[in-house]
This record gives sequence, C-alpha cells and structure tokens, in this order.
Amino acid sequence: MSSLKSHELEKNSHMMVNPLDPEEFRRQGHIMIDFIADYYQNIEKFALYYPESIETILQDIQKYIIPGITHWQSPNYFAFFPSSGFRGEILSTGHNVVGFNRMSSPPATELECIVMDWLREMLMLRKSFLFKGNGGGVLQGTTCEAILWSEKMEKLVAMVYGSDQTHCALQKAVQIAGIHTKNFRAIKSTKSNSFGLCPNSLRATIHADVEAGLVPFFLLAEDFNIWVHVDAAYAGSACICPEFRHFIDGFEGANSFTLNAHKWFLTTLDCCCLWAKDPSALMKSLSTIPEFLRNKATDSKLVLDYKDRKISLSRSFRAMKLWLVLRSYGVANLRNFLRSHVKMAKLFEELLRNDNRFEVVAPRNFALVCFRILPWPIYNSVANHVERANELNKKLLESINGSGNVYMSSTVFAIGATLREERHVIRAWKVIQEHADALLSKN
Amino acid sequence: MSSLKSHELEKNSHMMVNPLDPEEFRRQGHIMIDFIADYYQNIEKFALYYPESIETILQDIQKYIIPGITHWQSPNYFAFFPSSGFRGEILSTGHNVVGFNRMSSPPATELECIVMDWLREMLMLRKSFLFKGNGGGVLQGTTCEAILWSEKMEKLVAMVYGSDQTHCALQKAVQIAGIHTKNFRAIKSTKSNSFGLCPNSLRATIHADVEAGLVPFFLLAEDFNIWVHVDAAYAGSACICPEFRHFIDGFEGANSFTLNAHKWFLTTLDCCCLWAKDPSALMKSLSTIPEFLRNKATDSKLVLDYKDRKISLSRSFRAMKLWLVLRSYGVANLRNFLRSHVKMAKLFEELLRNDNRFEVVAPRNFALVCFRILPWPIYNSVANHVERANELNKKLLESINGSGNVYMSSTVFAIGATLREERHVIRAWKVIQEHADALLSKN
Repeated sequence: MSSLKSHELEKNSHMMVNPLDPEEFRRQGHIMIDFIADYYQNIEKFALYYPESIETILQDIQKYIIPGITHWQSPNYFAFFPSSGFRGEILSTGHNVVGFNRMSSPPATELECIVMDWLREMLMLRKSFLFKGNGGGVLQGTTCEAILWSEKMEKLVAMVYGSDQTHCALQKAVQIAGIHTKNFRAIKSTKSNSFGLCPNSLRATIHADVEAGLVPFFLLAEDFNIWVHVDAAYAGSACICPEFRHFIDGFEGANSFTLNAHKWFLTTLDCCCLWAKDPSALMKSLSTIPEFLRNKATDSKLVLDYKDRKISLSRSFRAMKLWLVLRSYGVANLRNFLRSHVKMAKLFEELLRNDNRFEVVAPRNFALVCFRILPWPIYNSVANHVERANELNKKLLESINGSGNVYMSSTVFAIGATLREERHVIRAWKVIQEHADALLSKN
Repeated sequence: MSSLKSHELEKNSHMMVNPLDPEEFRRQGHIMIDFIADYYQNIEKFALYYPESIETILQDIQKYIIPGITHWQSPNYFAFFPSSGFRGEILSTGHNVVGFNRMSSPPATELECIVMDWLREMLMLRKSFLFKGNGGGVLQGTTCEAILWSEKMEKLVAMVYGSDQTHCALQKAVQIAGIHTKNFRAIKSTKSNSFGLCPNSLRATIHADVEAGLVPFFLLAEDFNIWVHVDAAYAGSACICPEFRHFIDGFEGANSFTLNAHKWFLTTLDCCCLWAKDPSALMKSLSTIPEFLRNKATDSKLVLDYKDRKISLSRSFRAMKLWLVLRSYGVANLRNFLRSHVKMAKLFEELLRNDNRFEVVAPRNFALVCFRILPWPIYNSVANHVERANELNKKLLESINGSGNVYMSSTVFAIGATLREERHVIRAWKVIQEHADALLSKN
C-alpha cells in the first residue's frame, strides 16, 4: 500500500449513490458502531507494541486498521460524501489516538506519510514534495495554522507579499508571528487581470522594498529567494482532474502548497494538507523536544515526529479521514464528484448571463460564481454608481438570507454542499430573481 | 439553561457503569446513528434561519439540539467516559457546523458561551472570567494554540518567564510569536521547593531584566504589569473537587487560565478551555474581519465572533463535546471519576514506598506519580551516582516498554486512562518490579 496506482483506483468507478442517503448512512453507521464496540470488547487482547521497524508498523496497519474498514469497500461505500469524512472521524475518534511523535502511535505517522504521498501523486505535484524526495506532507488544522511558522529572522524588516484578494489567513499569520502589519504588502489586483496577482506590480513593489533596506520574506518569486507558498485551499481539490490541473502549472518553483480537504474533498474539519519541499524550515520554527517525549527513535533522528511540523503538540489521527476518502471513492469518483459541482456552477452562470440585470464579476473557473446585481438605471447614472450598486447588492443579500430559504455569503455563490443537486441551484436562482424583482420595484 | 445549579447536578448521581462497556456503547451508538440519519432525512424541512436575537437562538438550541441528546440522559448514560467525548464528536461532526463567527452558526457560539460559563462556575473561578463580567471563555485546540497570541510590542525586549518545569508549549509559542529564544527565562526549580516556581528567584530574575532595559511581558506577578497565565491543562480538572480547589487559590490575580478537557475531563482531542479576564487582548492579536465574513451582526459589534479569539478561522462545534460531558455526568459523577483516579495513584505511591529500591521524586498531588529506581549500591557510590541512576532508569523504562505489557513515559506514571481499574495498577507494579529485578541482577 506504499504507492498509489491511479489506474487501479480508476477501476473502482462503481455507481454513485447520493452521498448522504439516510438509509445507506444508517446501514453503514451501524456497522461502524459495532466495529468500535468490538474493538473495546477485545482491547485487552492487544499487546502494546514498542515500535520496531517501518515494516512491523505497516503490518499492524494492515492487521488492525484495514480490516475494520473493509465493510465499506462495497459498491455502496462510494456513496457518502461528507459522511465519509464523518465516518473517518468516527474511526479516528473512536480509537482515540494521540500522535505527537511517531512513537506515541506509529501507525498514525505512517498512515499520514502514505496518504500525503498518495494525494501528492494525484495532484501531480513534483517529486520534490515527496517524502522520498526529502520533501513531505503534514496534516494541519486549517490554513491559518498551516502558514503560521517562520524562520527566525529580524521581524522588523521582513516583508510578506500577497494580492489584495489573498485570504485573511495570511494577515492573521503575520500578526501572530509578530511581523508588523505595515510589513504586509497587499498588491492591488484588477478586474482586467481577473483579480490575479500581477507579476509586474509584485516585482515593482519588491524592488522598492529591497531598495529601502527591507527583506522580502514570504510569498512569491524565486529571483528574490523568498519563501513561496501556494494556498489552494479550495481550488486545489479540483486539480486532481486533468482538465483543471493547468491552474497550478506555474507553481513548480513554490516551496509549499496547501489544500483543505475539509473544503471540497469530502472530509470534515479539520484537515488542511500542507506539503513542503524542505520541511526543515518548518521544523526550525515548530520543533521542541521536551524530556517527556524523548525516546530512542526520536534520538536516532531516523523517524518523523509530526509535532515538529505543526503548532499543536497533541494531534489526532487525521490521516484516517483522508485515507478513507481516497480508498473508498477512488480517483474516478472523486473527479466526477468535483466535476458535478463545476457543472452546476456553469448552469448557474448561464442562468445569470440570461438575465441582464446581473453581472458575473470574476471569471468562474471552478464551482464558485462571483456575481452582482447591476440594474441599468444605476449603471447609467454617472455619479457614485459603484456605491449605489454596492448598497443595492447588500440589500439583495440581506433580503435573500432573511427569507430563510437560501443562504449565501457576501462574496460568492458557492456550489459545494454535498447534497446539492441541479434542482437546488435552479430553485436558488428563482429565489434570487424574486428578491431582485421586489427590491428593484421598491427603488 | 443559562446558569449551572450545582445542587441540581449533584442530584444526578446515578449508578456508574463502566464508561466503555462495549454493549452499552453499542446500544447508545446505534441510537446516535439513527439520530443523525434522521437529521439528514429531514434536512430540507428546516428553514435556514437568519440570526435574530439571543432569545430566538436559545430557543433553537432547545428545539433542535437538546432533543437529540435526551436519549442519553438515562441512568446508563453516565457510563461512557472517553466515548462521551466520542459521542459529542459524533454529534458535532455529524451536523458538520463551521462556526467562524456567530452568524455562521449561532448555536455554536451561544452554546460555547454557556458551557464555558458553567465550567467556570464549577471551577469557582472569579466572576471577572464570566461573560457577564466582561471576561469570557473560548475553546481552543490545544495549549500550544491557546497561548499563542500576543499584543503587538517590541519583540526584541519582551521577556517571557516560566519555571524550568514549564511545559514546552510555552517555548513553542514564544518561538512562533517571533520572540527570541534568549528572551525566555526558565527559572530554576528545586526538589526542596517541590519543583514549583520559586517567587524569590522569579522576582530576582525580573528585577535584573528590568534593570537591563528589558520588558517583562508574559507570565507572573502583578507588580510588574505582566500578563499572568495559569496553565492547568491536566490538574485543572481536579479543581472541580472542593478538596483540590486550593491548588489554584493563589491565582486570583491571573489574567488567563487554561484547562484541557481532552486530558482528564472526558472529551477527545481537541478541547482546550481558555478563560481570560480581558479577551480584548486576544482580539488585538487574533482578529481579522475579511469581507466575506462581514454581516450586520458583526458590524453592530453586539455579538461575539469566536474567530477573533483563536488562530484558526474555521472552527468546529467543540462546545457540543463539553456540553454533553457536563450534562450527562453532572458534578458528582465527574468528581467521583477524578477521585477514583487519584485513589489509584495513591495506591501506586504506597506500593512504591514499600519497595526501598524506588523513590517518589516529586510530591503526588493528583493522579500522576513521578518516581525512579534508586538502588542502594548506586546511591551510595559518591562518584557520578546521578548519571548512573539516570542511565539505570532509562534502561528500566526501555525494558518495561519493550515488553509490550505496560507503557509509560520517561517522566511519570499517569493514572488517566478511563478503562483503568485498580487491578491494572497492581499488575503494572508487578511488571515494573520484575523488570527492576532482572535489570539489577544483571548489573
């Protein structure tokens, strides 16, 4: 089980049942409860193994972990989406493993290495991110945690770069790491550039900072020896589909990459996947070796202790969740799941384009549609039409959310909920139109 | 349900069944699976509520959350210990709530305020830690996370103090927050002082730092306007028993307090309870208000958004776990559970004291016993007897752990596992003695 054979997983393209079908959840849920109850009934029969070799541990995974989940390898097992994460959570929590270091529960560490390498392979990330290639993956809680580490350096001159569309997680990490807010450069993005990070603006900003004696530290461009991190929290999942892979083509030079499996990859919170080419940089910031965690294996420096790559010392058996997803769905079904959401987003986009009161604000690449209402009378009035449009959109959002029938955030219409079907998208569009009608008739 | 009536909880002292009794777990587990399956079967019947008032939300908790767990309020519900956390985890994960801010899932925030106030009351913490008293509690992942925030200040001169016995979580937080390792003062503790933080040594160290132009920043003593944090990760739980409460008597002047419910309070990872008298200090470091999370309630500043008191933006419904524990066991059973572990530790201590080859190294206050083997021949040899004793203890530990029958860490013998009974302690002691016999006969 040490390497992922994509062609084998492709074969597992059994029928897809509704992933949250209550009866199927009920059936499988009961099997799981019995599985965990049996585990506790027999718990004293298991010896407490002092870890020996990787081989022994892998045998233990084979012997104690895998049989427990084979019930779910049936065709219907490919059914449940969030409940797959949920099922993994039950298994992980039910066995209640704490994996500071490898020794505290070796299979937790081993399984994490395996699934992170599998997922790296599915994403076609460079081999330099592979454990064997001196890189490696680690499961974090969320992006906020995943990017909160830094090599020791003079904080006063360390500069961090992102676009003005960068997730606030970066700003938060900067604050907590003690880097002054004014050292964070949010490069202005434009609609004409699809709200992307503009290389020219970035280069100009960095040049100005270097001339001012500041030290580019975190985000982009090999030229300046900056740590480049790619945050693909949401969209990263789609990159397991060949037709979407090109979106991360340019990041071959990056130092680290994150994808949040709890966002669009069928696990529940928390499950943020971080890969780094050189994990020793993480370890410089995050490693501590207290006396009570010392052991022969750690002292030998031949084993991986995940506590050194993450903020929290205690950590649960998150790999179980991801492992269950990869194993039970297989590449083909995972791709189809993601594609079905993108297809629904395309449908919504079409509906929008057919109503000239609405505008698609940013290009839709995956299953997120950014739109706004922009009725002609406002658009045509020269004075403060932007402010008036913003005000109108705010009212529309409050009106829709206030109805209790559809709920959206202020920035996007996201196709992400596992239970979503086309009929829900069509219904939501009708609700949006009705509220727009009512609002515009009042104005 | 806004205040905890201890005398009412005391009444719920039903019989205690083995907390991990497999058959009882099986029975309750099946009920839970049906409960969650029913929830998904009826999910479309629920309206999506736009949050209105605290009152409405509390009614929703009453209507949608509480009925779901009443099945487990039967006498046998007092049975499961780690599975109580496990059950809370199932409920929390099964409903899959993400609670960035109050609006994203109001009951998650409301329930967290309630349980944190309840637990504060059980611990008899000052009212200044209460939400109504402008203080407040927040559930974090682990201690490492809970203490990782700092007000913006000049990092180069900020000094952090702890004893040399302080958990490495503090050192890790200092590293990540960008405070230089040399700014962390580990005050030397001594056996004669029971390895506690010595006030005189602390005062002398702080005085010297102040004279050198450095700024005392984090740990102890009101005199210097330092932020005082009390980390009661493990022992804090026991302080709900009146006979142990005096251990935290001295901390009335502290600014913040943590207790890890996942350590000794019947929940699984992660569930670290943090209270602060002035949470605005946390918010200065941890708050970000991205556009996509803006809403009327947040803008009004009348509601609590937990994302501002914690590193990660996304957060699961952890309050469910703690709530289930407090509700299902009640104060009396919780105290008895903790006392039973302390009683077992006392037994182990007695066994140790009856064997003159062993020494209890630090006073046993709760259910942890720190001991070492110190056979007379080594003790009496004047030259390097400490090193030889350490070497012997290391060998003993490796020998015991290598047997696969008992597993201990290098610092303590901890009575904490929920399934533990006296017979397990007695058996472990026999294993320790056997390995000591074998080791000493070889030397």
